Amino acid sequence: MTKDLRVGVAGLGTVGASLVRLIERKSNALTARCGRPVRVSAVSARDRTRDRGVDLSGMAWFDDPVALATSADVDVYVELIGGEDGPAEASVRAALAAGKPVVTANKALLARHGVELAALAEANGTALFYEAAVAGGIPVIKTMREALAGNEISRVYGILNGTCNYILTRMEQEGLDFSDCLADAQRLGYAEADPTFDIEGFDTAHKLAILTSLAFGSRIDSEAIYCEGISSITQADIEAAGELGYRIKLLGVAQRTDSGIEQRVHPTMVPKTSAIARIDGVLNAVAIDGDAVGEVVLVGPGAGGDATASAVLGDIADVARGHAIPTLGMPADTLAPYEAARMRRHEGGYYIRLSVYDRSGAFAEIARIMADEDISLESIVQRDRSRAGDLSEPHSDAPQPVILTTYETTEAAVKRALATIMARNVVAGDPQMIRIEKLR
Amino acid sequence: MTKDLRVGVAGLGTVGASLVRLIERKSNALTARCGRPVRVSAVSARDRTRDRGVDLSGMAWFDDPVALATSADVDVYVELIGGEDGPAEASVRAALAAGKPVVTANKALLARHGVELAALAEANGTALFYEAAVAGGIPVIKTMREALAGNEISRVYGILNGTCNYILTRMEQEGLDFSDCLADAQRLGYAEADPTFDIEGFDTAHKLAILTSLAFGSRIDSEAIYCEGISSITQADIEAAGELGYRIKLLGVAQRTDSGIEQRVHPTMVPKTSAIARIDGVLNAVAIDGDAVGEVVLVGPGAGGDATASAVLGDIADVARGHAIPTLGMPADTLAPYEAARMRRHEGGYYIRLSVYDRSGAFAEIARIMADEDISLESIVQRDRSRAGDLSEPHSDAPQPVILTTYETTEAAVKRALATIMARNVVAGDPQMIRIEKLR
Repeated sequence: MTKDLRVGVAGLGTVGASLVRLIERKSNALTARCGRPVRVSAVSARDRTRDRGVDLSGMAWFDDPVALATSADVDVYVELIGGEDGPAEASVRAALAAGKPVVTANKALLARHGVELAALAEANGTALFYEAAVAGGIPVIKTMREALAGNEISRVYGILNGTCNYILTRMEQEGLDFSDCLADAQRLGYAEADPTFDIEGFDTAHKLAILTSLAFGSRIDSEAIYCEGISSITQADIEAAGELGYRIKLLGVAQRTDSGIEQRVHPTMVPKTSAIARIDGVLNAVAIDGDAVGEVVLVGPGAGGDATASAVLGDIADVARGHAIPTLGMPADTLAPYEAARMRRHEGGYYIRLSVYDRSGAFAEIARIMADEDISLESIVQRDRSRAGDLSEPHSDAPQPVILTTYETTEAAVKRALATIMARNVVAGDPQMIRIEKLR
Repeated sequence: MTKDLRVGVAGLGTVGASLVRLIERKSNALTARCGRPVRVSAVSARDRTRDRGVDLSGMAWFDDPVALATSADVDVYVELIGGEDGPAEASVRAALAAGKPVVTANKALLARHGVELAALAEANGTALFYEAAVAGGIPVIKTMREALAGNEISRVYGILNGTCNYILTRMEQEGLDFSDCLADAQRLGYAEADPTFDIEGFDTAHKLAILTSLAFGSRIDSEAIYCEGISSITQADIEAAGELGYRIKLLGVAQRTDSGIEQRVHPTMVPKTSAIARIDGVLNAVAIDGDAVGEVVLVGPGAGGDATASAVLGDIADVARGHAIPTLGMPADTLAPYEAARMRRHEGGYYIRLSVYDRSGAFAEIARIMADEDISLESIVQRDRSRAGDLSEPHSDAPQPVILTTYETTEAAVKRALATIMARNVVAGDPQMIRIEKLR
């Protein structure tokens, strides 16, 4: 029997505690599958006295994760501290510099320092694994780095944040407002007390930045991501989407275009018939379009202690088996510079909701402004159904909601048209604009 | 730069020709991703003169795949000949015996000889890869052997045959008969001239046998699979399923039960709301229930030259990177004997369609026979809607279709009840019985 793989775990929150428990419970199966025993030999966390429901006896305790990461009694360093800098970064760098393989669930760290860390791992002949950093228990990193190595990827997109998907699902299924759903998500532990990071799309953006690099062999650039969250989505949008044959999902989309790579996170109208439309609640899903394979879709739990620990444990099994893969799928110095497509050049269909002062001629004016920008309208609907067929007649001074959808056009044209409409004093308040994604 | 990985390909049908083209086209990307150039150095096929649309110049030609498999100029042997015995088996054995890694798409070979081949690979310090053997381009083998190594699997199930799924989808969407859909599938190249292997479930069974071994760490036993195809499914069943909130799919299901492992292939009623119900046409899908991760679902193309070649190429990339994984996830000699649960002990809900002679008392008699077997009926519907509410009155001598669904019961009880009903001369023809699967 080969000698034990000694695992050092820094960070004993929900995921860390799950991991320690799983390794203990699955000792025999892991030995059979990995060809050698796997055991946690050392841990590090902030508070040594806290009861985490796991037995830490027999494991060395380190107050300093950097010391744990470089300990001669640890064969693989597992970083579950979190945060893009600070002790997480310092300890991961220290482990890699010492030639020790690292497993992490830290998307922020990868999104910010991924390319440097990849180079550091290579320079020291070791490997960095991070399956748990994107879409929790779903094996999307392994699928992209390994299974689809023979594919050129044209697009990768997905539902990468369970909090947002939970909120959007409940808004649709129960007709609730955004704020009520958010409050429930917080009560149930699906959303943080400060939910900004999730609901404004930043969490999705971090994950997308990693997938983009894997898809296109480009350097990670999370700063270049166009990012729009879900807090502006109203019940009126959800209902209109349903009537138009769509559902609204917060998608992260990375796509190769003629003008460069698009990376965008925004609420998206997806056809009800698409696979991604049917992902409800806290589930995550990732779809990968490869030139050889076609489209592969992976669905599963995107968060949770055990599901995330499952991904970490899969990485540990790879380490135990002696596998090494370039961190970002190819050597760091061969990654292409990231060439951002400008969001204004994004092409697609658009959903637009306006509050129109219902005076004579407003409809004609909006339609003409759209036509002037070469935007073809697919539909135009006044939402007050009682007055359908009576579009040009003045009725009251209260603005009426009007929903437009466009055929494929450019973001720039839509933005110009909306600016013109706003300047004409025919609409009240800000327009709502949601992109429509073409999906199978 | 490490030296080239020289690939020997035996079998130049659709998948083989796709593979040769892909390796040629993706030469640069493969070199970056695998850390070394990958090239086809030698090929073998039955007919040297046939035009396959690929340039074979610069590749050595072997008439004998065994000679190719053991050639000193080949670093990895790719078997795409097919068939559970004959040259496929002989050449794979020869390559493994020579310590050469093997990549195959051959499900029949694995289902029949997988455990022996696994032992042979281990004894010779090499590895056998077969991602393409199950669910085409979907990375289910990698997910089960590697990503979910930290999970105990309780059930794995899926749509593993695109031909059957295409037929069932069209029957449902277009109201066509089985035979018409089969003829179309044959015309479109989705079904063979002799479709028995697909439509009677044997192809699904081969794939399921492999997944079962990976899920439960048991020896492969494809003989132990309960297997029932889709040729008995009628439009009446499809329509009744729809009304009851189900769709009918040919599933392969492997499940751990108290009495052993169930392996079964049969038409299955799946809730319309389940992920698996929404897989249409020739797509495949596999769902894996793991104790840590929960349920992961993988969806994608289950067949086709390029999609299958994509999986083969993923395996070749693993070989190029020097990875080795025990063929069936753990050493062959540690695989547990397969302990079959008896199908009669299967527990679940059942759909039963009977043609009932509409004489007074027939309904009461059927209900009593069910009750005598402790089978609780969830619903009982006479399908002639014009006569609803008039169940016990005689109307004509023609038998009337009656649909029952049961709550969870055992296969044995249902079989006994149906035998009793048949003996009582209240029904015409054979009853239809379709199992209902509990799914999220």
